[in-house]
Amino acid sequence: MNSPETLEEIGEHAAIAALTANLNAVGDDCAVLPLSQTHDLVLTSDPLIQNIHFTHEATPQQIANKAAGRVFSDFAAMGAEPQYLLINIVAPPEQKLQTLEKIYAELSILCKKHKVEIVGGDLAQGPTLELHVFGTGRVEKGTAILRSGANPGDLIYVTGPLGGAQKTGKHLTFEPRLEWGNALRESGTVTSMMDISDGLATDLRHILKASNVGAELDLKKLSLIGDPKEALFDGEDFELLFTAPPGAVFQDLKKNFPIIGKVTANSLELSLEGTSLEGNAFEHFKSQKT
Amino acid sequence: MNSPETLEEIGEHAAIAALTANLNAVGDDCAVLPLSQTHDLVLTSDPLIQNIHFTHEATPQQIANKAAGRVFSDFAAMGAEPQYLLINIVAPPEQKLQTLEKIYAELSILCKKHKVEIVGGDLAQGPTLELHVFGTGRVEKGTAILRSGANPGDLIYVTGPLGGAQKTGKHLTFEPRLEWGNALRESGTVTSMMDISDGLATDLRHILKASNVGAELDLKKLSLIGDPKEALFDGEDFELLFTAPPGAVFQDLKKNFPIIGKVTANSLELSLEGTSLEGNAFEHFKSQKT
Repeated sequence: MNSPETLEEIGEHAAIAALTANLNAVGDDCAVLPLSQTHDLVLTSDPLIQNIHFTHEATPQQIANKAAGRVFSDFAAMGAEPQYLLINIVAPPEQKLQTLEKIYAELSILCKKHKVEIVGGDLAQGPTLELHVFGTGRVEKGTAILRSGANPGDLIYVTGPLGGAQKTGKHLTFEPRLEWGNALRESGTVTSMMDISDGLATDLRHILKASNVGAELDLKKLSLIGDPKEALFDGEDFELLFTAPPGAVFQDLKKNFPIIGKVTANSLELSLEGTSLEGNAFEHFKSQKT
Repeated sequence: MNSPETLEEIGEHAAIAALTANLNAVGDDCAVLPLSQTHDLVLTSDPLIQNIHFTHEATPQQIANKAAGRVFSDFAAMGAEPQYLLINIVAPPEQKLQTLEKIYAELSILCKKHKVEIVGGDLAQGPTLELHVFGTGRVEKGTAILRSGANPGDLIYVTGPLGGAQKTGKHLTFEPRLEWGNALRESGTVTSMMDISDGLATDLRHILKASNVGAELDLKKLSLIGDPKEALFDGEDFELLFTAPPGAVFQDLKKNFPIIGKVTANSLELSLEGTSLEGNAFEHFKSQKT
């Protein structure tokens, strides 16, 4: 190719890979860094952009829920505890202050619920409404659940039904699985974990790559909403996807999460009920081929 | 007013005040929070938006310098040490990847220089190029320099020439004063500090309000570039503005910073060479009256 490539041509995932090639990027839902003798520091950030992540029909409550929820879900995926948020809001000059005040009020309610404090941020002028939420928190030293710990023979679990998140509006109203993420980490049996934001198959591939393993999926026990393809390749379900050895007991959870497959030694090979699953993920920027 | 107000009508500062009214917002350049027995956690975030903070003529190096520099300058203003950055990039589909790669390469160079690590972030689709930089760092417990410590009789200093930052391009090429900020904190004599991003008069008013004091400015010793009004009410000089009692010695700095005024007991009253200075700051969103 002669001219430099655009994001539309190369797609989101390849662009991120190119940009972060020279960084010690951790590739997990959050970055985990040394903090003290007892805890690690946990950091993440997520953008929420009008016409990309929500439409003009979304209510202030839904916008707040998705903006903070995406960050809380990242913490849940590590089994970590969010503590502080900073929020950059971008808005056009004609933006009604009242709407922003409602969004902020809802953010405050969500933060109170999860014992998180909003401690900073900024308000800047731009072409469309955006919220950039930055979260810091902590986890007991060395206990954060990464994507890289899955072993052949492990069973694969999810914390709830998958699919239809766009049509049902779950992508705006989901509950971040903070308590379950923490309890799963405390059980000491979970080997890898992440949240499902791009579809089960797409996200599971991140675990397979990080752990250098394969997986066979069997979705009989999974509650599927709508077309299975949505659950596999679209997403924004914000349930937790995790692995644990057979016989693992999730203490204090009093909940049986459905087993939806098992980890194999066939590096990066992913199959569904015996048929190989090729990559077909939704990607931002790229024109989608149907 | 019958209809809800827009950001254009109310202006940036009043909008931020309305949004953060119910938060325990610290109102300093960074949030300072308990971290460990020896250190406080320091957090800040800054957006950089095309056509607001830079034009299409800015080079990748300038974009990177301003994006990370604004965050580093916030740390400098507290005398704190930045440690980790997360960077959300927003870009349209037609954005050339090559430009983003150059911006990222320049960000990496700047971070290496200041011993800071880029540990995360995201890439999202939106209408225009934006960088949202989140910084975390630390400072020796209880030693961060706030805006609230100025006392009547203190002298007022700046770390360099002011004015003309837009015309000269300094707003894109400035050097964040991290070393000076740290040395000024370590001197133990500085009573209040912030960085100048909205003009000397505008920013000094933040110190006056936080400290409940007034100030008399005398700019004879200050190197002014261009129209003094720019130095007073526009800005983006990213020099440090600070106060210290007469006779203060700034150890290890081997530098004489110009004294540009003194703190008075006349709460919130700001004068320049005997004449009262009324608020006339540049504000984002608001139509500017000349």
